[in-house]
Amino acid sequence: KIHKIAVIPGDGIGKEVMPEGLRVLRAAAERFGIELQLTPIAWASCDYYQATGAMMPDDWKAQLQSQDAILFGAVGWPATVPDHVSLWGSLLKFRREFDQYINLRPVRLFEGVPCPLAGRKPGEIDYFVVRENTEGEYTKLGGIMYEGTEREIVIQESVYSRFGSDRVLKYAFELARSRERKHLTVATKSNGIAISMPWWDGRADAVGAAYPEVTVDKQHIDILSARFVLQPQGFDVVVASNLFGDILSDLGPATTGTIGLAPSANLNPERNFPSLFEPVHGSAPDIYGRNIANPVAMIWSAALMLDFLGHREAHDAIVTAIEQVLVEGPRTGDLGGQASTTEMGEAIAARLGAR
Amino acid sequence: KIHKIAVIPGDGIGKEVMPEGLRVLRAAAERFGIELQLTPIAWASCDYYQATGAMMPDDWKAQLQSQDAILFGAVGWPATVPDHVSLWGSLLKFRREFDQYINLRPVRLFEGVPCPLAGRKPGEIDYFVVRENTEGEYTKLGGIMYEGTEREIVIQESVYSRFGSDRVLKYAFELARSRERKHLTVATKSNGIAISMPWWDGRADAVGAAYPEVTVDKQHIDILSARFVLQPQGFDVVVASNLFGDILSDLGPATTGTIGLAPSANLNPERNFPSLFEPVHGSAPDIYGRNIANPVAMIWSAALMLDFLGHREAHDAIVTAIEQVLVEGPRTGDLGGQASTTEMGEAIAARLGAR
Ligand SMILES: CC(C)[C@H](C(=O)O)[C@@H](O)C(=O)O
Ligand SMILES: CC(C)[C@H](C(=O)O)[C@@H](O)C(=O)O
Repeated sequence: KIHKIAVIPGDGIGKEVMPEGLRVLRAAAERFGIELQLTPIAWASCDYYQATGAMMPDDWKAQLQSQDAILFGAVGWPATVPDHVSLWGSLLKFRREFDQYINLRPVRLFEGVPCPLAGRKPGEIDYFVVRENTEGEYTKLGGIMYEGTEREIVIQESVYSRFGSDRVLKYAFELARSRERKHLTVATKSNGIAISMPWWDGRADAVGAAYPEVTVDKQHIDILSARFVLQPQGFDVVVASNLFGDILSDLGPATTGTIGLAPSANLNPERNFPSLFEPVHGSAPDIYGRNIANPVAMIWSAALMLDFLGHREAHDAIVTAIEQVLVEGPRTGDLGGQASTTEMGEAIAARLGAR
Repeated sequence: KIHKIAVIPGDGIGKEVMPEGLRVLRAAAERFGIELQLTPIAWASCDYYQATGAMMPDDWKAQLQSQDAILFGAVGWPATVPDHVSLWGSLLKFRREFDQYINLRPVRLFEGVPCPLAGRKPGEIDYFVVRENTEGEYTKLGGIMYEGTEREIVIQESVYSRFGSDRVLKYAFELARSRERKHLTVATKSNGIAISMPWWDGRADAVGAAYPEVTVDKQHIDILSARFVLQPQGFDVVVASNLFGDILSDLGPATTGTIGLAPSANLNPERNFPSLFEPVHGSAPDIYGRNIANPVAMIWSAALMLDFLGHREAHDAIVTAIEQVLVEGPRTGDLGGQASTTEMGEAIAARLGAR
């Protein structure tokens, strides 16, 4: 079987880390005899918007629908296109229209990476954030009344469905059950957000009834964020709404040294649509153009893609190569090293070649 | 002038830390010749709810309106009363009906407190979170459709007014301007939350136009949370919506060692209504009853109250006493010590007595 992969670098450092993702992907494909058909795509970028006035062509969905997966860099260049325009015109559209309702984000402290938390060792930070990825707080619903006057009032609606919540909760319970500790933390804010969050807590109870082996604790997002810093060893799987998952999956990786490591998988588990794999970091305009971005999040995302496509051993080999290079170098600046994006990517690819 | 203070311990460790807050308050009052009339209040607690079916008596507002300030412990006892019932029936009512629209939360790393962030020194974490406290994401507006069926859909509304946003932004700009670094970070999430947050960014620009001396950066809440861990020295004043301020003001204190230190001031700056002073930590049912809670957040909150009532020197003396005890002990368990709540409170009060 040939896997068809759409390759979308996007903006900023997305364009710098993608070549390294592809380098390692090709090395893994060669070693494990995986056939890939890569289709580079220049749209879903602010450059394309500048040229055409839209983030993507009208037939974007038709073009991507036949792909098995999308490998994605990062979108956003606020100097020319406001973030809500660029993101709602690309990434957030993919997540929604391809029903990638699971955003799976591993958080892991690696050997060789200086930990910003005092005295933490690899093994003490090792959990998954499972983020709802298609509804919740991210909407364009609502509006502005008395616009432009002193009396201006803004309504922003969040929307949750039982369908949408139950399926992400179920996924998280399944993942927790498959792990050794079988523990699930449910992010909530039912003491303050008075309609949706008490309801969400109820859905967690209802879905959890089928998983008696899994221990559950519900934590309000404020104290949960604090505990990511104070007691990271207490987490195994964390399930959260779209917004809370967004916050936790930047905060978690920060506690492991750099968000330059964190990958993510935007999954449509039923495979009715292509799933999308991307670094958690964004386009980082502030460091773009110097070839200093850490390529690991991109490379690890490519590994998650191979895993999802059925190539577990290729995934494992890439993660092992990442682990080795994090210990032995070369390392980019965010890891305390001086290597370029390219040098770090080459080093990881080389490890894959050498069995 | 006699200051009239309503004293509401509330639930859980609120009942344990309040006596220490009062002990230190009385010591400061004596030393500085401040006249206080303290009125203890047993309602606004889950015990009261258990007995009466309501969190507060019908005339709560009339009873409190004549007070100059409210000293508050913590509310919440989820084993008997759901959090959204207890909080909306007490604390959140105070904030709204007394128009305490500023929630001011200092974050500061003290000498003598082991920092969970590797290698950080006092002085490197020292900023304020200014939180909008009366609107935004905390609402009971919205509802559930197809309730109890598979097709269930939940709408949760957030509400922002120009009036409500501009006044907290203005307060934050003023605070930033009064400080040495004159830097303001505006928390946003305009790339995902598509109606309210781009609008909020615009209000920050509009209000900020009157403060050319203040440097401003807008940060999305996900990366902002990450930077509280990775680059805390980059913050001076952070202004945020109700929910984002809630998260940041637990996360920030976590990076300074323990949320047992963090105080807060719920201010009605115009003094049309009593302001409320409370620890950031909640009622902590898991540690209640053992007299091990850290009383510093409560004591520091009492100091903020004295400052707001015009007694800056009493405030400063309490903070100095806290600083000394944090360095020399005794310390509660969350600080690595073995002292009881009472012992730590007594030690701080004793420092105040000894000039
Ligand atoms: C108890 C809860 C409703 C409250 C809040 O979210 O405002 C608390 O977390 C706080 O920060 O004061
Ligand atoms: C760029 C932004 C819209 C996006 C999000 O908030 O989902 C990003 O932060 C992420 O986490 O993938």
